[in-house]
Amino acid sequence: MPRSPAGDRGTIVMPVTLAQIDRYLVENADRHLEELKAFLKIPSVSADSRHKADVARAADFVMSQFRAAGLDAELVKTAGHPICYGTWLKAAGAPTVLIYGHYDVQPPDPLDQWTTPPFEPTVRDGRLYARGATDDKGQVFTHIKSLEAWMKVAGTLPVNVKFVIEGEEEVGSNNLDLFLEANKSRLAADVAVISDTSQFARDVPAITYGLRGIVACEVTVRGPNSDKHSGVFGGAIANPVNALARMIAGLHDDQGRITIPGFYDGIPPMSADERARLAQLPFDERQFLSELGVDAGWGEAGYTSLERRWVRPTCDVNGITGGYQGEGPKTIIPSSATAKITCRLVPDQNPEKVVAGLEARLRKLAPPGVKVEFRTWHGCPAFVFDPTSRYMGAAKKAIATGFGVEPVMIREGGSIPVVASFRSLLGLDTLLLGWGQNSDNLHGPNEHFHLADFRRGTRASAHLWHELCVV
Amino acid sequence: MPRSPAGDRGTIVMPVTLAQIDRYLVENADRHLEELKAFLKIPSVSADSRHKADVARAADFVMSQFRAAGLDAELVKTAGHPICYGTWLKAAGAPTVLIYGHYDVQPPDPLDQWTTPPFEPTVRDGRLYARGATDDKGQVFTHIKSLEAWMKVAGTLPVNVKFVIEGEEEVGSNNLDLFLEANKSRLAADVAVISDTSQFARDVPAITYGLRGIVACEVTVRGPNSDKHSGVFGGAIANPVNALARMIAGLHDDQGRITIPGFYDGIPPMSADERARLAQLPFDERQFLSELGVDAGWGEAGYTSLERRWVRPTCDVNGITGGYQGEGPKTIIPSSATAKITCRLVPDQNPEKVVAGLEARLRKLAPPGVKVEFRTWHGCPAFVFDPTSRYMGAAKKAIATGFGVEPVMIREGGSIPVVASFRSLLGLDTLLLGWGQNSDNLHGPNEHFHLADFRRGTRASAHLWHELCVV
Repeated sequence: MPRSPAGDRGTIVMPVTLAQIDRYLVENADRHLEELKAFLKIPSVSADSRHKADVARAADFVMSQFRAAGLDAELVKTAGHPICYGTWLKAAGAPTVLIYGHYDVQPPDPLDQWTTPPFEPTVRDGRLYARGATDDKGQVFTHIKSLEAWMKVAGTLPVNVKFVIEGEEEVGSNNLDLFLEANKSRLAADVAVISDTSQFARDVPAITYGLRGIVACEVTVRGPNSDKHSGVFGGAIANPVNALARMIAGLHDDQGRITIPGFYDGIPPMSADERARLAQLPFDERQFLSELGVDAGWGEAGYTSLERRWVRPTCDVNGITGGYQGEGPKTIIPSSATAKITCRLVPDQNPEKVVAGLEARLRKLAPPGVKVEFRTWHGCPAFVFDPTSRYMGAAKKAIATGFGVEPVMIREGGSIPVVASFRSLLGLDTLLLGWGQNSDNLHGPNEHFHLADFRRGTRASAHLWHELCVV
Repeated sequence: MPRSPAGDRGTIVMPVTLAQIDRYLVENADRHLEELKAFLKIPSVSADSRHKADVARAADFVMSQFRAAGLDAELVKTAGHPICYGTWLKAAGAPTVLIYGHYDVQPPDPLDQWTTPPFEPTVRDGRLYARGATDDKGQVFTHIKSLEAWMKVAGTLPVNVKFVIEGEEEVGSNNLDLFLEANKSRLAADVAVISDTSQFARDVPAITYGLRGIVACEVTVRGPNSDKHSGVFGGAIANPVNALARMIAGLHDDQGRITIPGFYDGIPPMSADERARLAQLPFDERQFLSELGVDAGWGEAGYTSLERRWVRPTCDVNGITGGYQGEGPKTIIPSSATAKITCRLVPDQNPEKVVAGLEARLRKLAPPGVKVEFRTWHGCPAFVFDPTSRYMGAAKKAIATGFGVEPVMIREGGSIPVVASFRSLLGLDTLLLGWGQNSDNLHGPNEHFHLADFRRGTRASAHLWHELCVV
């Protein structure tokens, strides 16, 4: 059977090649899994400076994977962790796809809640357990391996590919925009593809047409110059932990609405259409809560669970610390207390305005006698894109083949700042094709990726390159 | 010069002996300091089970000190840490004094805030720095050394002594009451003496005639079965940290009043007399706040700083923990959050009722979808005793000699559960004679004891045995 030459998008040659590619993926599935495990063994925790060398090792691993797949590979230095840039640009006349992913991972703690260690990838019950298994190393790997399959089987790709894998997604992608800005023409493409979201449910693959934005902050309340005896001093000075609790509590009212001034500015009321579309999704609230291990939901009054997660903004504390945390009691007034706070944003909240409002609200709620320190980590706006683009149709077909079922159209509660950057800096729409599942424990202990999703996602990816070329 | 025989309380012999004792204390001051350092080197942290052997070593050290001072010494086993019991009972016809102290210490963290390590006693600027320097090893040592002085100089004591030094004061003295209960007749005495409080201010020694009580609890709020992605799930389930913050904030109203149901039951309004007595004390609010490093006080509306610390109850968080506490941001909804809470009580609040009210209030404030776990560590009621007892007069004289100035009569905000037990189980009044200072950083980093207070306290103690005998 003849190889498919660059630019030859004939409907006779391709289906045969696609079958060969499908077979290649089946025959090489075990090796692909072993290579993914090697990737997952590298503790590339970008938030923790002690893992700097590990993050660099992960970048090197990606580079070797690019080369093995037949891509040209370039390691782009940044002020932080490097960007892996892989290209194949010989499909003259065919569309150019900008694929994006990240090789860095979330911190693995709490370590004692992992059944097997986070950086010793282990398969149990058809799932691959490791930090980064689904977010995002495993999902990135589906695209690397689908490209490898095309190159090994066909010796060519049906589309041009520019593959950007960064190492700072989990800490705000601080250097990615600089890279995009400095390489606008070099990165020119027709559409972007990202697999860093989830299916809607088990065996219900989805295309995500909207994401929430985010702002991440840290607030520290300082009281007495050291921990003080709670008997000798208690009652006469503000306790930094009590103060911080009061400040956090004051961010919501009794109806779960956020009380930050101007917080809801710019948010349009939900349309009846969208409410109906969300209500039609096969969402089982009881099962959702049961999987989380909680017996009731909670959130902003007047909205359903899906609406609260996709269409409404939030204000959550991600961590809090202050005073004595060891065994037994300790009778002190702590010297200070700190909380990490993130707000999830929706269109068209302004991240800077939200941060300024949050800081002002916290300072206003602080009692006399404490000092409030406030710092911001990173932020990005939310967005919703057009679900009727022609590339969307290609993705639907590829997923239907890879997963054996048509995808549903959803929004997501998470944030992928690069999607907004792709639109504002490169003028690109993004196809958000999630191969993982919400129950994969991304960001938590025992993160995992179903092997079936790894295989189906890789197949869908391989078919996507073809479908994008025939649209 | 003849020794003072047991029972001979003549006013001619004693003054000569007292001068000799004063001289003995001066001549042996350096050795006493070295011995105290050896005591402080033992990290007898009763709250931390990893220090169990160290706590036992501290008890052995006390036993050797008892014997060196000429007391009969018995190590009393308990279900927890042992009690050191030292006696000398040959002063026929003289009063019997029950002296109490503790050899256990608070946990030393935060370790990074100590200038020199907490268990490497160091003298700087006339102060001895170490965990336990003032609370309570240093203050206990004044009584051991004053007894040693009497025994070495006079070969006898003017009073009978029963010296109880326990190892569980910092964790609630859980086994002490059992010991007192089981040894009521053996521990029979005329008055108790405890040095575990503070002077009112530098060079303003004090006798404490009231203490606050305490209840210590821990509350844990459990949400999802593991840390969850704050984007994917945020908004639809209660966040345990936000929930705990709301619960803590709901324990006070805007006026600093505690909103636990029934909390203030049993507390009489402050008398005009007591308000006047407190107002007359040489208390400099600005200096007090400045030493704490805060620019304003805060507390229950309608009360002064001293009233808030001595006469009014409190509800303070001693520590809080939940979610991610490392470097950088982490976008999770934490699985759980925990706070340690203590309430300081005043007469005549009922500790059991306060605990029940606190638990009920916290549970009521918890949002749907979280589970609340509550545990209690220990508790004791507050008390005020008669400032006109004849033993009080003896203490005033001894302090006037030891410190060169008359003591003031004060209350204290801390809790010494054994004082209530001495009254209820043994029918004893207690003389609370504090040689330390509020600024000694007890319970915090850089705890210290002024060497001048160590020496003046030891001298006052030596004179107290004489004064108690002549009253």
